[in-house]
Amino acid sequence: MDKRAPFPVSRRSMLAGAAVVAAAPVVVASATGSTASAVQGRVRRVTIYAEALPNNQFGYGLAPGEATIPGPLLEIYEGDTLEIELVNTTNQRLSIHPHGVNYDTASDGAPLNGSFNEPGQTRTYIWRTQTQYKASGGFYMPGSAGYWHYHDHAMGTSHGTAGVARGLYGGLIVRRRGDLLPDRQFTVVFNEMTINNKVAPDTPMFEARHGERVEFVCIGHGNLPHTFHLHAHRWADTRTGMLRGENDHANVVDNKNLDPGSSFGFQVLAGEAVGPGAWMYHCHVQSHSDTGMAGIFLVRNADGTMPAGAQEAIDRFHGHDHGGHAATEPAAATAPHTAHGGH
Amino acid sequence: MDKRAPFPVSRRSMLAGAAVVAAAPVVVASATGSTASAVQGRVRRVTIYAEALPNNQFGYGLAPGEATIPGPLLEIYEGDTLEIELVNTTNQRLSIHPHGVNYDTASDGAPLNGSFNEPGQTRTYIWRTQTQYKASGGFYMPGSAGYWHYHDHAMGTSHGTAGVARGLYGGLIVRRRGDLLPDRQFTVVFNEMTINNKVAPDTPMFEARHGERVEFVCIGHGNLPHTFHLHAHRWADTRTGMLRGENDHANVVDNKNLDPGSSFGFQVLAGEAVGPGAWMYHCHVQSHSDTGMAGIFLVRNADGTMPAGAQEAIDRFHGHDHGGHAATEPAAATAPHTAHGGH
Amino acid sequence: MDKRAPFPVSRRSMLAGAAVVAAAPVVVASATGSTASAVQGRVRRVTIYAEALPNNQFGYGLAPGEATIPGPLLEIYEGDTLEIELVNTTNQRLSIHPHGVNYDTASDGAPLNGSFNEPGQTRTYIWRTQTQYKASGGFYMPGSAGYWHYHDHAMGTSHGTAGVARGLYGGLIVRRRGDLLPDRQFTVVFNEMTINNKVAPDTPMFEARHGERVEFVCIGHGNLPHTFHLHAHRWADTRTGMLRGENDHANVVDNKNLDPGSSFGFQVLAGEAVGPGAWMYHCHVQSHSDTGMAGIFLVRNADGTMPAGAQEAIDRFHGHDHGGHAATEPAAATAPHTAHGGH
Repeated sequence: MDKRAPFPVSRRSMLAGAAVVAAAPVVVASATGSTASAVQGRVRRVTIYAEALPNNQFGYGLAPGEATIPGPLLEIYEGDTLEIELVNTTNQRLSIHPHGVNYDTASDGAPLNGSFNEPGQTRTYIWRTQTQYKASGGFYMPGSAGYWHYHDHAMGTSHGTAGVARGLYGGLIVRRRGDLLPDRQFTVVFNEMTINNKVAPDTPMFEARHGERVEFVCIGHGNLPHTFHLHAHRWADTRTGMLRGENDHANVVDNKNLDPGSSFGFQVLAGEAVGPGAWMYHCHVQSHSDTGMAGIFLVRNADGTMPAGAQEAIDRFHGHDHGGHAATEPAAATAPHTAHGGH
Repeated sequence: MDKRAPFPVSRRSMLAGAAVVAAAPVVVASATGSTASAVQGRVRRVTIYAEALPNNQFGYGLAPGEATIPGPLLEIYEGDTLEIELVNTTNQRLSIHPHGVNYDTASDGAPLNGSFNEPGQTRTYIWRTQTQYKASGGFYMPGSAGYWHYHDHAMGTSHGTAGVARGLYGGLIVRRRGDLLPDRQFTVVFNEMTINNKVAPDTPMFEARHGERVEFVCIGHGNLPHTFHLHAHRWADTRTGMLRGENDHANVVDNKNLDPGSSFGFQVLAGEAVGPGAWMYHCHVQSHSDTGMAGIFLVRNADGTMPAGAQEAIDRFHGHDHGGHAATEPAAATAPHTAHGGH
Repeated sequence: MDKRAPFPVSRRSMLAGAAVVAAAPVVVASATGSTASAVQGRVRRVTIYAEALPNNQFGYGLAPGEATIPGPLLEIYEGDTLEIELVNTTNQRLSIHPHGVNYDTASDGAPLNGSFNEPGQTRTYIWRTQTQYKASGGFYMPGSAGYWHYHDHAMGTSHGTAGVARGLYGGLIVRRRGDLLPDRQFTVVFNEMTINNKVAPDTPMFEARHGERVEFVCIGHGNLPHTFHLHAHRWADTRTGMLRGENDHANVVDNKNLDPGSSFGFQVLAGEAVGPGAWMYHCHVQSHSDTGMAGIFLVRNADGTMPAGAQEAIDRFHGHDHGGHAATEPAAATAPHTAHGGH
């Protein structure tokens, strides 16, 4: 059990930081003290370290030696600007390229625009955001709010796809004022035949307590089509995963395409109307789940204890019974190595 | 012509049953007498038999010896509970796992939770549904209404994907009060390189009369990405396939991803503004349609007669001319073996 | 620089024609004089020539010898009828099959209905459109407005997929009255491992001036799943790519599935909030972009001059520096061979 990650943690104190890496310095948040009522247009600053990891993997982290796969979940409000000082501690050319936000060519992160860090180099990338605004004819041009992501765009070939394969990716949330804030957040990246560069049974076990508002940020990478399925929960196929009223007739889904470069997010109440337990999440492409693209969303009892049958389910998933593990407290539910990197 | 299937059949008398298996005992409906004005929260019960079929296939059915591929189309209202007594008549471990509805771990249908039928075993699965409800900030948590599906999650490997490949799947509709009810319903499952485990020209020919309100329930399974295309008809990419008003600007499509684990549905007026005829439906992935993922949606004249040219089209599709088949009545348009299993 | 294509061109004068083939006779538009205020229900007529092109390719064009890949971008208003006289100048059986619009079996374009042109034959196809209309219960049946496409459905095998592989495809826009009209339009077809049947660096370079309203029509074909990504711009996943008000919560994306048979479109303001420059567009399936499914969206300065760094980016993309190319005017930004066929 990772003592660094108190449970539960109040994520309202750390917007723009990453709840799932609560132990790490949440630089963005601590620099700005952002809250739901913060004025728009704040400039937030964060330093991100790109580092080599064992097994020829790479990761982004918020402090030296803290790199994870995925990298930290970044979060800002629509209207804010995020300045990222990217420190490249590796011997590879790399960058950070975001989806969904505004950036000029110098912050593109693509070799096409000469926008990357040479080995050992530090470079600043600036991401701006905008709110939607009225065009003519009753139409509005969309703002930046959404469940987005970022990734390397420069390692390896001229097209820069080697870094993604090796772990240089993470989630990026741009919220609109008034959006509901979750109790917990998990980043799920379907990358080639892995989840967060892991295969079962080493895939991340996401943990929450019964009734908590849990936010999933789902990202696709690699060369293959995938579909993300979560057992016993569902969400609307909208910007927030929720609906806007009785007559809203957006699609409601529990299985959604998660193909390379795409991302989406949603919030569920953990175990709502279904109870606590060990719930599967997996790619629904059959051969993908069969060969390891599956994991567990563990919904604990409201008091943090393990629900009946859950440990047995976890043991089945691991293919063995490692006994005497009836923890009454979540084992580092929100720590990076659990939430992002497996166990 | 299958005398068991009168044409047309009033499906309003059998909500929660499956119009496409009109001949079979519609247990759910007959047990509840559900109608569009029924109160919410009814508990509906149905017995489903999982059976071995020829050629190493398996199917679900509503009575012994009546298993089909796909299984019966189940239909309930949001707020209802469906109790399924699953009788496993086979020598394989299997289960029934639903999408979109609420269930506790005992009804999960996944080996992870020890939720399955051993060979010969009978087990009850309980599926509950909920209506959307208001959260804070103007957001609503989504309800269960949608075009969903169910499938085995326990046969074969520990991940339970062998049953899906062999035919253990079907459609599940959860309606909201006020939803429009169709005259006919068809379940289309893109499963690996087949449609309903058949390849052309043995794929199902779906039949309706000109102007009838026809509901398609489309489900994806297997290992491959697919796109469902229907000629000469289109639908909105919403929960119902329809729009909500003049200013509704949801996407309107006639081709949609139908990837493993996903499902959607829609209603069209058969032949509206295009006339009766033999209309193709097919996977738009070219090599998939070339090798057999194509079929015919036969829109008959309003009086049930064959429209000019349609029989010739059907004969072309079959690669031969079997002549003198100018039926004036649909040949078992809604019978299981036509709607689901070929022709 | 192609003198046939003045820059900029007022596309309002040529609705139903194709801005990207401004040099060609815009038959549909010139026959009808369509404007945004035109009454509904006009019958528009166009002659399209299917022609053999070098390298075993085929194309559609609006005049003899003018065939391009993709074919002309056709555009009509909801309510209009489009009569297409298709002249088959080739020695192959072929047709023109549309998505999204209404047609009877004689205009289906599919061999199933005997609807195609024999070699050398001329045949008329009629595409009708409809506005949405009210059904019961507050539901509306969708109209024809959308970003659609057309393609051959008869060359080669009985299923007619050879023509698509060789270039017989194009975009089709059905607008609703009141829709915003763009300054420029580009058709992007992800066809197997190509973009518009080209691979990088020969993929089309789409050019616009800073601030212009640019419309992309994106179409998928072939056997593979793709995702379309555009750098530094985003759009709403709606019929128009825009939103309808402050509370509209449709998904906003910058990466979207573009799988066989699917299409979508959107409008962006070129370089809005990010500035002019050479912006990448590419398939986000990594191996696809690595092997050539990438191109450049060149946003010039508002006065048409090349922005700082853009030529260097273009040169990097081409893998060489062909120097002295600092054009102050776009090089045939809207000409067919630039917009559709490479550079």
